[in-house]
Amino acid sequence: QEEDEQPIVDSEEATNKKRWILIRAVIGELLCTFLFIYIVCATSANFIRLKTVMNPVVGALSTGFASVALIYAFADVSGAHFNPSVTFSTMITRKTSITKGLMYIAAQLVGSVLAALILLATFPGDDFKGGNVASALAIEPAPDANIGNAFLMEMILTFILVYVIFAVAFDTVDNNVKTVVRGGKQGNNLTIYNTSGQTKAGFAPIAIGFTLGFLCFMGGSVSGGAFNPARVFSTALVGRNWTAHWMYWIADFLGAGLAGFTQSFFSTKYNK
Amino acid sequence: QEEDEQPIVDSEEATNKKRWILIRAVIGELLCTFLFIYIVCATSANFIRLKTVMNPVVGALSTGFASVALIYAFADVSGAHFNPSVTFSTMITRKTSITKGLMYIAAQLVGSVLAALILLATFPGDDFKGGNVASALAIEPAPDANIGNAFLMEMILTFILVYVIFAVAFDTVDNNVKTVVRGGKQGNNLTIYNTSGQTKAGFAPIAIGFTLGFLCFMGGSVSGGAFNPARVFSTALVGRNWTAHWMYWIADFLGAGLAGFTQSFFSTKYNK
Amino acid sequence: QEEDEQPIVDSEEATNKKRWILIRAVIGELLCTFLFIYIVCATSANFIRLKTVMNPVVGALSTGFASVALIYAFADVSGAHFNPSVTFSTMITRKTSITKGLMYIAAQLVGSVLAALILLATFPGDDFKGGNVASALAIEPAPDANIGNAFLMEMILTFILVYVIFAVAFDTVDNNVKTVVRGGKQGNNLTIYNTSGQTKAGFAPIAIGFTLGFLCFMGGSVSGGAFNPARVFSTALVGRNWTAHWMYWIADFLGAGLAGFTQSFFSTKYNK
Amino acid sequence: QEEDEQPIVDSEEATNKKRWILIRAVIGELLCTFLFIYIVCATSANFIRLKTVMNPVVGALSTGFASVALIYAFADVSGAHFNPSVTFSTMITRKTSITKGLMYIAAQLVGSVLAALILLATFPGDDFKGGNVASALAIEPAPDANIGNAFLMEMILTFILVYVIFAVAFDTVDNNVKTVVRGGKQGNNLTIYNTSGQTKAGFAPIAIGFTLGFLCFMGGSVSGGAFNPARVFSTALVGRNWTAHWMYWIADFLGAGLAGFTQSFFSTKYNK
Repeated sequence: QEEDEQPIVDSEEATNKKRWILIRAVIGELLCTFLFIYIVCATSANFIRLKTVMNPVVGALSTGFASVALIYAFADVSGAHFNPSVTFSTMITRKTSITKGLMYIAAQLVGSVLAALILLATFPGDDFKGGNVASALAIEPAPDANIGNAFLMEMILTFILVYVIFAVAFDTVDNNVKTVVRGGKQGNNLTIYNTSGQTKAGFAPIAIGFTLGFLCFMGGSVSGGAFNPARVFSTALVGRNWTAHWMYWIADFLGAGLAGFTQSFFSTKYNK
Repeated sequence: QEEDEQPIVDSEEATNKKRWILIRAVIGELLCTFLFIYIVCATSANFIRLKTVMNPVVGALSTGFASVALIYAFADVSGAHFNPSVTFSTMITRKTSITKGLMYIAAQLVGSVLAALILLATFPGDDFKGGNVASALAIEPAPDANIGNAFLMEMILTFILVYVIFAVAFDTVDNNVKTVVRGGKQGNNLTIYNTSGQTKAGFAPIAIGFTLGFLCFMGGSVSGGAFNPARVFSTALVGRNWTAHWMYWIADFLGAGLAGFTQSFFSTKYNK
Repeated sequence: QEEDEQPIVDSEEATNKKRWILIRAVIGELLCTFLFIYIVCATSANFIRLKTVMNPVVGALSTGFASVALIYAFADVSGAHFNPSVTFSTMITRKTSITKGLMYIAAQLVGSVLAALILLATFPGDDFKGGNVASALAIEPAPDANIGNAFLMEMILTFILVYVIFAVAFDTVDNNVKTVVRGGKQGNNLTIYNTSGQTKAGFAPIAIGFTLGFLCFMGGSVSGGAFNPARVFSTALVGRNWTAHWMYWIADFLGAGLAGFTQSFFSTKYNK
Repeated sequence: QEEDEQPIVDSEEATNKKRWILIRAVIGELLCTFLFIYIVCATSANFIRLKTVMNPVVGALSTGFASVALIYAFADVSGAHFNPSVTFSTMITRKTSITKGLMYIAAQLVGSVLAALILLATFPGDDFKGGNVASALAIEPAPDANIGNAFLMEMILTFILVYVIFAVAFDTVDNNVKTVVRGGKQGNNLTIYNTSGQTKAGFAPIAIGFTLGFLCFMGGSVSGGAFNPARVFSTALVGRNWTAHWMYWIADFLGAGLAGFTQSFFSTKYNK
């Protein structure tokens, strides 16, 4: 903790330390995306094998609970993006450098493909309609939804995800709006801040994880409900299904970028 | 943060800043209501299209999780009411001015109607029994429930919602009741406060969001279970179904107002 | 807040203030029990009317979410017991005086009976097999479970509930066990305390509410799964079904008392 | 609290106190494992008796909610491992001494067997296919999964559980990475830390409990989904079913150990 006091100088040691932290972050992002993709895919594969009617609540709870846990576990290592569109939105709003962002996206793709491969090793294959487990889990738009419906749906879902992430994981508004003087005149807004300066950041993984949960209920019948290009990429590659693959990258990145800029509007400090 | 120290004067700059914060709050309320209504409606529409038996847990979890996330995301921007009856209750208890309250309600209605329109663009229409998706999602009392049952049900549901909001998002009781001296004689009540002065406000979005979740289980078979006039208004307008529309405004406002005053009783400071 | 400084004297004013706080607590306990019983009963009644197969998750989530919300809302007013066996356990462990405890239990019974009556006014009656809605919701042991099975089950369920309440809502162990010196040698236990002296009390409503949720899954097929004599009393009175009524009072009080004393063992300070 | 100030000396009194805290921890671990195993088994037994199709969400919510509650309740007494593979991972990473670890594992096995015995006393036996309730709940690999699939699945599930435990319940990374200077340049990572030094440890029971919840969705069709040798041991002993019993110990310990060392990599402080 004596390091807290020292000035930030670009000495050789500081450079080495920064590099070490970056490498660890990239490896963390790989591990964290591996775990996320494995968890959501294994959940679906498990219920295909159990031959139960897939209860829609299962997928949503699995995704939501896993996100809460993984964000608490990896937030201090890599930020726990596990989604290229999240990384993209932090790049264009200058919260992550281009280099780091591209390293993150590469790590996410490697991690997600590894997850799809380990899936093959854990789920015996006869239950998956002639294909392997990855092809059974590949995401594509619903046959009766045109590409415009699906595109708009993916854009909105990713918008919601990234908006919530930005709003709860970064400080948002002017300091003296947030401060509530206890018992004073300012406390009229419903606010989640208290006088001890506590912010909502500790609760961010809950808010973000629950968001990933309810998003699972909204778009399945239209776009397949991915809101994460890495999820689509992994099963597309291992399961050889590239239907409308480009759409998930473009729509998700557009929604994510729009969310980043929209939230920036609300977090702008007032300057006369 | 140097602004924290300065006295609150009605200088031109301060006036401009206040106006800017108000405008941002109204726009935030519009966006937040748009998202809430879109999320709950898209969830239902998705399951109509999937032709699965609608699992009642899906609607409740979607509403509950979305509320938790949106309240954390918008609480510091607008207070995250996304419900005209919540705004009404803060107006009559003088926590929101009449002007601001009316602007909020207008923003909520605009946001909810936009949500219903975007719904038309995302959900292809053949699955919705001849009408559009909005008419399929319109809320009305159950045929065999008389208007009195439905009115009372809506009133109770909104009472519960607003009571919880007031109790968890505002400080409630005399300060020295709340303070628990650690290890001392006062700690006999089950209390959620600790000596570091932490209040329950950080947890408010969880308590309120879970409340919106369980309310979905209670009144569907009687009143349709709206407890939010903006939810009813959006699908009434876009789906052209105005059955008993007035009832949702009157019953919900009555329940909300009653809750506001009841909770005020418990939060009154003792004065001999 | 100037009251914080003043010595606690038994002046007339202090007496009046204490009485006012007590009256408010008793009324709060009545309102809170009314809401809890109404919420869990209306959930069941709603699904009887909807003629859906009652999804077991619905009851558990409704009970769990409602408990989280009500405990956050009423903890600082009355402690949010809403269960005579909880009050009983705080009486015998001297956390609540006999007088206050008896007033609480009376308030809980009045509140729960009011809830059953309002239920009659909100749920039209033809769906409830010839009886009213309260008789359809009355709790009794399963026909093929003998009274010993049911008694033991109720005792265990209430034990779990009260143990969790005591362990999370009161400070439990020696201070210097709880303190974790950051980066020091003491931090080897998985602990939920940090150096800023934060306790788990702020999370207590979540832990207790989730407990009420999962308890709903455990005993329904044996004892009916009440773990709350007020829940049994309200529908017994309004629905006229007193089968094995005494058992719920005796078994729940025994389980609650045992839990209180067991947890006291773990929270005992070490004295050579 | 005057004990906080005194130097830690190995006086007789200090030794006695340490022994007392250790004994209490071991007894706490026994009680906590008893409760956990009883809760998850009673949930399954209840639904076998109710003859409803077992909703997969029930098991996951029961396990997840119970874990959240029990970890908040017992974390300060024993650390709330209730799983020999968790204890094993803390032993090999030197967070728990060998002696204490072995006492914990013994206590966990005794507690889990007691739970299986009490299960016999609470669930009348005719519904359990000729065997007792414990044999109906015994865990074994799926018939069509080879032992390799099952082994790998158990290893991954336990890896996920222990990784999350280590990452959220211990401080993980260099201090000055975690610190976010409010409004400063460092706050670019999504982080759950704030300037008041709050760590994520208060949320650990939520992250860990949710993890135990979603793990229930993933491996049932392959390995039976135990990720806890004590869960397998209790019903194996009382229900006399030792199929592939060794596998749960080896695979779970391997996964747990691997997780402990992997997370240690991420929590290593940088030293040039």
